[in-house]
Amino acid sequence: MYLVIHGPNLNLLGKREPEVYGNLTLEDINQQLKDLAVDLEIELTITQLNGEGEIVDCIHQALNDEIEGILINPGAYTHYSIAIRDAISGVEIPTVEVHLSNIYQREDFRHKSVIAPVVKGQVSGLGLNSYLLGLRGLVSEVW
Amino acid sequence: MYLVIHGPNLNLLGKREPEVYGNLTLEDINQQLKDLAVDLEIELTITQLNGEGEIVDCIHQALNDEIEGILINPGAYTHYSIAIRDAISGVEIPTVEVHLSNIYQREDFRHKSVIAPVVKGQVSGLGLNSYLLGLRGLVSEVW
Amino acid sequence: MYLVIHGPNLNLLGKREPEVYGNLTLEDINQQLKDLAVDLEIELTITQLNGEGEIVDCIHQALNDEIEGILINPGAYTHYSIAIRDAISGVEIPTVEVHLSNIYQREDFRHKSVIAPVVKGQVSGLGLNSYLLGLRGLVSEVW
Amino acid sequence: MYLVIHGPNLNLLGKREPEVYGNLTLEDINQQLKDLAVDLEIELTITQLNGEGEIVDCIHQALNDEIEGILINPGAYTHYSIAIRDAISGVEIPTVEVHLSNIYQREDFRHKSVIAPVVKGQVSGLGLNSYLLGLRGLVSEVW
Amino acid sequence: MYLVIHGPNLNLLGKREPEVYGNLTLEDINQQLKDLAVDLEIELTITQLNGEGEIVDCIHQALNDEIEGILINPGAYTHYSIAIRDAISGVEIPTVEVHLSNIYQREDFRHKSVIAPVVKGQVSGLGLNSYLLGLRGLVSEVW
Amino acid sequence: MYLVIHGPNLNLLGKREPEVYGNLTLEDINQQLKDLAVDLEIELTITQLNGEGEIVDCIHQALNDEIEGILINPGAYTHYSIAIRDAISGVEIPTVEVHLSNIYQREDFRHKSVIAPVVKGQVSGLGLNSYLLGLRGLVSEVW
Amino acid sequence: MYLVIHGPNLNLLGKREPEVYGNLTLEDINQQLKDLAVDLEIELTITQLNGEGEIVDCIHQALNDEIEGILINPGAYTHYSIAIRDAISGVEIPTVEVHLSNIYQREDFRHKSVIAPVVKGQVSGLGLNSYLLGLRGLVSEVW
Amino acid sequence: MYLVIHGPNLNLLGKREPEVYGNLTLEDINQQLKDLAVDLEIELTITQLNGEGEIVDCIHQALNDEIEGILINPGAYTHYSIAIRDAISGVEIPTVEVHLSNIYQREDFRHKSVIAPVVKGQVSGLGLNSYLLGLRGLVSEVW
Amino acid sequence: MYLVIHGPNLNLLGKREPEVYGNLTLEDINQQLKDLAVDLEIELTITQLNGEGEIVDCIHQALNDEIEGILINPGAYTHYSIAIRDAISGVEIPTVEVHLSNIYQREDFRHKSVIAPVVKGQVSGLGLNSYLLGLRGLVSEVW
Amino acid sequence: MYLVIHGPNLNLLGKREPEVYGNLTLEDINQQLKDLAVDLEIELTITQLNGEGEIVDCIHQALNDEIEGILINPGAYTHYSIAIRDAISGVEIPTVEVHLSNIYQREDFRHKSVIAPVVKGQVSGLGLNSYLLGLRGLVSEVW
Amino acid sequence: MYLVIHGPNLNLLGKREPEVYGNLTLEDINQQLKDLAVDLEIELTITQLNGEGEIVDCIHQALNDEIEGILINPGAYTHYSIAIRDAISGVEIPTVEVHLSNIYQREDFRHKSVIAPVVKGQVSGLGLNSYLLGLRGLVSEVW
Amino acid sequence: MYLVIHGPNLNLLGKREPEVYGNLTLEDINQQLKDLAVDLEIELTITQLNGEGEIVDCIHQALNDEIEGILINPGAYTHYSIAIRDAISGVEIPTVEVHLSNIYQREDFRHKSVIAPVVKGQVSGLGLNSYLLGLRGLVSEVW
Repeated sequence: MYLVIHGPNLNLLGKREPEVYGNLTLEDINQQLKDLAVDLEIELTITQLNGEGEIVDCIHQALNDEIEGILINPGAYTHYSIAIRDAISGVEIPTVEVHLSNIYQREDFRHKSVIAPVVKGQVSGLGLNSYLLGLRGLVSEVW
Repeated sequence: MYLVIHGPNLNLLGKREPEVYGNLTLEDINQQLKDLAVDLEIELTITQLNGEGEIVDCIHQALNDEIEGILINPGAYTHYSIAIRDAISGVEIPTVEVHLSNIYQREDFRHKSVIAPVVKGQVSGLGLNSYLLGLRGLVSEVW
Repeated sequence: MYLVIHGPNLNLLGKREPEVYGNLTLEDINQQLKDLAVDLEIELTITQLNGEGEIVDCIHQALNDEIEGILINPGAYTHYSIAIRDAISGVEIPTVEVHLSNIYQREDFRHKSVIAPVVKGQVSGLGLNSYLLGLRGLVSEVW
Repeated sequence: MYLVIHGPNLNLLGKREPEVYGNLTLEDINQQLKDLAVDLEIELTITQLNGEGEIVDCIHQALNDEIEGILINPGAYTHYSIAIRDAISGVEIPTVEVHLSNIYQREDFRHKSVIAPVVKGQVSGLGLNSYLLGLRGLVSEVW
Repeated sequence: MYLVIHGPNLNLLGKREPEVYGNLTLEDINQQLKDLAVDLEIELTITQLNGEGEIVDCIHQALNDEIEGILINPGAYTHYSIAIRDAISGVEIPTVEVHLSNIYQREDFRHKSVIAPVVKGQVSGLGLNSYLLGLRGLVSEVW
Repeated sequence: MYLVIHGPNLNLLGKREPEVYGNLTLEDINQQLKDLAVDLEIELTITQLNGEGEIVDCIHQALNDEIEGILINPGAYTHYSIAIRDAISGVEIPTVEVHLSNIYQREDFRHKSVIAPVVKGQVSGLGLNSYLLGLRGLVSEVW
Repeated sequence: MYLVIHGPNLNLLGKREPEVYGNLTLEDINQQLKDLAVDLEIELTITQLNGEGEIVDCIHQALNDEIEGILINPGAYTHYSIAIRDAISGVEIPTVEVHLSNIYQREDFRHKSVIAPVVKGQVSGLGLNSYLLGLRGLVSEVW
Repeated sequence: MYLVIHGPNLNLLGKREPEVYGNLTLEDINQQLKDLAVDLEIELTITQLNGEGEIVDCIHQALNDEIEGILINPGAYTHYSIAIRDAISGVEIPTVEVHLSNIYQREDFRHKSVIAPVVKGQVSGLGLNSYLLGLRGLVSEVW
Repeated sequence: MYLVIHGPNLNLLGKREPEVYGNLTLEDINQQLKDLAVDLEIELTITQLNGEGEIVDCIHQALNDEIEGILINPGAYTHYSIAIRDAISGVEIPTVEVHLSNIYQREDFRHKSVIAPVVKGQVSGLGLNSYLLGLRGLVSEVW
Repeated sequence: MYLVIHGPNLNLLGKREPEVYGNLTLEDINQQLKDLAVDLEIELTITQLNGEGEIVDCIHQALNDEIEGILINPGAYTHYSIAIRDAISGVEIPTVEVHLSNIYQREDFRHKSVIAPVVKGQVSGLGLNSYLLGLRGLVSEVW
Repeated sequence: MYLVIHGPNLNLLGKREPEVYGNLTLEDINQQLKDLAVDLEIELTITQLNGEGEIVDCIHQALNDEIEGILINPGAYTHYSIAIRDAISGVEIPTVEVHLSNIYQREDFRHKSVIAPVVKGQVSGLGLNSYLLGLRGLVSEVW
Repeated sequence: MYLVIHGPNLNLLGKREPEVYGNLTLEDINQQLKDLAVDLEIELTITQLNGEGEIVDCIHQALNDEIEGILINPGAYTHYSIAIRDAISGVEIPTVEVHLSNIYQREDFRHKSVIAPVVKGQVSGLGLNSYLLGLRGLVSEVW
């Protein structure tokens, strides 16, 4: 079982700042992730959460649910949530961090991820593909 | 036609610092990229270059060769080569930046990429998969 | 319909650090805001929330409730909540940021607002008047 | 008697950078301030000065003129004039700082006000309304 | 009545990063705290919370519950939660901050506590003893 | 045998800056430490030294004297004496650092301890109790 | 009509710090500029001003005088006068910034120009030639 | 002939922030300086100026007036006026900088003097004595 | 004989980022430089090089070729090539640095030139004219 | 009784770096101080110490000796000895800090004094006169 | 077999900046190194390269040539070439870094070596002796 | 006569942190230095001192003892003792700085030497050889 966590404000996707994120909705992304899950022959749980504590709780719950890997777009929390960072490093479940946009083309404060040092890898800037490639990277055992 | 550029020192791969990069050689990576190219029905040119000026020349040459996309692991130049950055933004060919290791788990000076703001996206930390997913992301037109 | 959001710890107002905030309670402020709303012939919803995720949810809900403008005192979140910033810029509802005290006379870390770049304007340092003038500024269409 | 000081370059208003300030002229602002003064039953003196020393002199003169409050848009001096700051804190006349534009959406060096720590409050980003609300805040004795 | 607040991720204790925290569980700590409370002839309430807003609420509730002192391990929030800092300084209940590990031997970002300036004292690096000594320090009236 | 080292200026205690340290003298602290030593059934040597080199010498001497643990209040040297830091890490005797006042409520340069990364733990801000709890923490073998 | 503005202290030229500026006087420069103006078939107004506010006034006056281009050596104001910067960007008259000496070979604080981002171009380090080439650059319409 | 320049806001002395400057007026200081001048058998010119450009002009004028030494309290300009610095270093007249208050006990931005590197010496923190000793230091030829 | 060196990526001119550089090609610039050389009655060698080491070699070669002056647009190397800086200062041939665009209106990292402290002068922001005026400045002996 | 403390390396005076300090020896300075003491009708004790701890001891001893004022040239310790700073602020004896050279014309690290915030005043850059004027300032009760 | 690499601009030695490097030529250094090699009974290969990529290639080639140790003066690349750093750490051949001049007496940017953390040791400031002692240190097996 | 000064904590050598310094004792180093002194036909005085003031005294004493050169390992004082720096530059005796370990591979605060700018040269990272080569470099007159 794999877990996908969409962080804060990602529920606004498609309604919000189309010059940055396009017209894609969260439902579109989730459908594509589910289709890919079928191809990869894995199960997938998907959730969207705006609260930092709720995301920490959700990552802890993954321990009980025997989740094999986490795909997370931490949204704004990418840049300051040491609590989420500690949760990821605490549960020791392989995690891949993804971003729709190229965070290095945006405001300075978005160039730094406090999450990055505790994940296996990141994919960013590739829109929907960030999620799809991230999930492939999480599931694949090549490296 | 797509172009893969391996930056400085990547020819040492497999001989060098296995605690960071494992035993994978550049030839292994190239073979896997070629296999994936067949699956994706694209042509692929692969080169490894240690010189900054040579990489700039190679990117310029891509304009003449009508390259459709560039997959680049800029190695150490990631962190300071504004010349390579300018070359990528100058030729206006879609480019994806990849890193074998999670650069955010290494020395502070490796946390910053001067290349990142001019590429379409990055994939890092996923070893050989960084390359394979990066190539998929470069070729795919989903987003 | 307009929305007023009081951020974390503002429920302590009147009980807390009177040398900074005086004896005014949150109820006093709310009553004055309601009186002004009658004068301005607008409807007003007022809420106080301590959680960052709850404030993000509340701002998202404003989209569904067809809120015309948001008056927010983000309290401590002023200085680090990129999640609330993203929520405000995501919903694209005109927002005015207010502070009771002059944040530039307090500790260094209170001099910076991560919210400020995405709001229409701010009013600070004028106590209860920060709220009243902020609401006038939000509703008025002079400029 | 209240005093309004427009700092350097504000005489260009309406002719200058309309994408930032719109077509409003200084005369328009002054007329609206005068109208509001009538409503508030106060007297108003208005001046525009480009020189730092002249603004310091003007603030000192306010002591002799028994000015009750100063409304100031320090313009570019906002960011470096410690001389004006010292003048304001020296005369101990209540002062409100206003800005037409949201200074936090402009260049980094405009994010810091050296004046702010010595004024009663600020209003910014609300265009003409910054002045009108600032005057109300200066005159009002609610808090 | 005294209150002990364990911050985010401390519920993972014993399961998590044993090279940093050892095999001690939160239950072990709580049992020892309760035993010490009996010795010190005080009552003790203990809670563990992952959410920042929940911790703020809990500190506010302490006002109503007439809590005499708070012992808090703010976990990751130590380093950025100005909201928790404001809650502690707002309720004006004596508070002692504790850390299991020596935060000065860990990553740079863990060297700074935004909570520290508003507490009575801190104890860190002494494992379970950080809690026990912290509680003694909170209760004792020697200094 | 345990060793207590009081750093520079602590001999002024009780005569010096009572708004920071109260009326407690060094003799008061030493008497309380000796009383606690009796309770803990340990021997204690206590010294006060103003010289950096003398403190380094004293720590080296502890090796010859088979000292089991050092309780140190490094005073001003806390913030810059790498020589004392190297002495502590060189002798490899368990050490606890204590501070009478909460150093995080004082000047910025007092917020950083160069000693902290090489000690077992610290206790600060609890006045005389910082010493007493520090000694308990040094002697105790719970964690 | 073109306008040349010499900033503060340039009237001392020739009397002042010859190891930096040589024996050239301001009159020498002005004569050469006038000779070049004849060659270029343009009219030239030249002024030297020590006051920041006076330079701002002078730039504003250029709007009324229908000045086609401004050649400015802002002297010490180069490094901090946002008021002059705003005046230049406000009047939207093409401006070239010149410096007699190579400001990058002098004190660190002279390496930064706050004027530079709003001018068309700069010439520095070429002594009298900085002015002559700067005037040619201002008048010429090649690029 | 010696010249004394009082910078901006010093005319407020005695009316202004007595907790910093006491009840001494500028006239008191000037009288004491004149008395000392008689003792030292020198002539003295004293002026007070709020404008930066006016102070630059005044220093230039000193060249024509064959002033032998300048005693200057640059007030707020101490911290940023490179124009005044350049004037002092340009005229090459021996100059002593004085401050009534100890600028190192005030706000951080008052700790740095851009004037200091070009003067012969400074005297600060000694109130009226800063001026008197500064004048002695300027006139004396001992060192 | 004079030498013109165009640095990395300048061969892309006219094909590259026209919003920054316009449609001018390197050939256009070279033709204009050659025409000006005829006017100035000097000989000119022109080269374009992408490699840092090649540029260093070329500057060394200038020593042998008895080059009288170097006109260089170091492109991206402006900002970090201490090797080129050392080559210029090593050969002690008068050098003028030119930039087509106003580097102070671009990204922060382009505001700093490591080359500037070792050249005679710079001309920037004037497009083709930067080169033409730079060459005049290099050849002219006025100052 | 007044105390003069010469800090580290001042015994080398006259033998050492004459381009900075001239040929004056410490004995010369002391003789002049003694002569002035006779004029001022005060007693004077003079000492030179190279050790930080010894200077701290010496300042403490001043308490017992009922010293009325301290004149100190802290030498290199000016820039980092918080121990000496704490000693000065601890004994609460009026202290004046002096420097022979203008420390603002020397290396950057000499621009900052950690001692300055706890002394009454400083005199610097006036050579022997720094000491003489400093002593006058210490003894005088004018301000 | 040992390898000596002279970095960029070292071929100018003796012709270049004699106030920094004296009249010694590269040939003089090489002759002395060869003489020492005879004494030490080792073989020596010596090369000088201006290009960063060429130095990387040369270090890689050392792997094939079974070089036992590298003596490198990285010249300007000392301060920024992470590519050369990675090459040295990649080939895992013992390396000693040398500098003719004391880099800590030169410009600030020359104080930092990015190469230093991956070499065995450095010798700097001793002119020709830096090379001779560096070679001895490389060959010797004492420590 | 040459002088060797071992700084603080070097007496612990061989007992202390063997993973950094190995099993070599200070006596071993001294014996090897004495043997080399015989080879070089020089006399040698060796001392080890923990106190900063004592090291300053020792360097001053070298003036009287007509020491020809100083070999110093300043230990922890390397990083902050401006007093030792001033002593070295004051006595004007040629000095070489040595470090056993490569200080650039250790904590950040060990990367900076305040001593380096005033010595002739440094040797670091080569263990015992750092001392032996340093002494050769000090004695040798090659460069």
